[in-house]
Amino acid sequence: MALSRNEDQRVSLHTVERLSVYRRKLEELSHEGVEFVHSHQLATMVGVTPAQLRRDLASFGSYGNIARGYEVAKMITTISRILGTDKLQNVGLVGVGDLGRALLSYRGFEERGFHIAAAFDIDPAKVGRLFAGRRCYHLDELEPVIAQSNLRIMVLASRPEGLQDIIDRAAAAGVRAFLNFVPRTTVTPPGCFIERIDISAKLEKLSFLVKQQEQCT
Amino acid sequence: MALSRNEDQRVSLHTVERLSVYRRKLEELSHEGVEFVHSHQLATMVGVTPAQLRRDLASFGSYGNIARGYEVAKMITTISRILGTDKLQNVGLVGVGDLGRALLSYRGFEERGFHIAAAFDIDPAKVGRLFAGRRCYHLDELEPVIAQSNLRIMVLASRPEGLQDIIDRAAAAGVRAFLNFVPRTTVTPPGCFIERIDISAKLEKLSFLVKQQEQCT
Repeated sequence: MALSRNEDQRVSLHTVERLSVYRRKLEELSHEGVEFVHSHQLATMVGVTPAQLRRDLASFGSYGNIARGYEVAKMITTISRILGTDKLQNVGLVGVGDLGRALLSYRGFEERGFHIAAAFDIDPAKVGRLFAGRRCYHLDELEPVIAQSNLRIMVLASRPEGLQDIIDRAAAAGVRAFLNFVPRTTVTPPGCFIERIDISAKLEKLSFLVKQQEQCT
Repeated sequence: MALSRNEDQRVSLHTVERLSVYRRKLEELSHEGVEFVHSHQLATMVGVTPAQLRRDLASFGSYGNIARGYEVAKMITTISRILGTDKLQNVGLVGVGDLGRALLSYRGFEERGFHIAAAFDIDPAKVGRLFAGRRCYHLDELEPVIAQSNLRIMVLASRPEGLQDIIDRAAAAGVRAFLNFVPRTTVTPPGCFIERIDISAKLEKLSFLVKQQEQCT
């Protein structure tokens, strides 16, 4: 069955997040040699209802026939295309501290279609050096390097000081989306997106849940 | 005004997540020397409505008088107590790869009340060594070290293989909450909590948003 043409229509962010989850599971299945999967099986594996899964996928077309289930490899390709990660895209990184270096060494990014093409810092001991094969530029060179490497997405792992200024400069130079690990509130420039990962806040939430549970038992 | 006694009543997870955000902003303010803040100011700074902020805080008591606003230092202390992070608590870490080492070196955890007390790996080159001052144990020693260090929270940054087994063993040994960086679907043991941080999925979401925006302009 052919894919329908409505792949790129506007879908909700929740759907997009679930697509990532489906793809991850499908990649696990593919790795294990599974070629077909039924919607109710996949739904159970990722913890959504079969109706939810079918709705999410219906917006993007068909992935197989009902008798054999969805075709795993085809679904992975289609979801990648929907997410825009079917071709490797360049990403920038601000801050080559412990976290920044960990991200530079993390091979999972490339597997998912992201290549950290350039890193930025202000530390003279880091500027000009290669980290995991990627050059560290001075933050002063942010604008030309963004243009050169066609960076649309920037990962922020710097110190909090001056973060907003970096975001504003990067946005003015063409960056459209930021993945922010820095625990500092930020203002999103017009036409841009910021996703935040606050590791400590997640730990605080877990700490709260454990405390609450201990008090109730 | 004294704090009321209903600090520990059950609150929604969304409230808990917002409390982390409020505390972060309050710490920024405190750092800048601000002693009092009005609820509408704080609400604007963190991007919630003043009504939402007052509702969130009302569950836990009073933080100041209306004329001067909330008392910043007192709010920080109270929120920390609610989150269970007013005393440093030991946390475990499974996987001393790039990400694991970055987490071990990250000073932000201690500031927020979390101390990675023990790390685990199976690599003979790592077991027995110190990383940022913390000992790396063999995974075989998971259970005794959990008991010894009274670990209730475990950070997962290992390879995907065997992840579920590690979770189940840790849960049986007393761990109640997991912060999972490993891109693999997991089953949550009864009475436990798992929070997932999927860095690649966040990038995929941003990639989708950027792609969608480019198609619409």
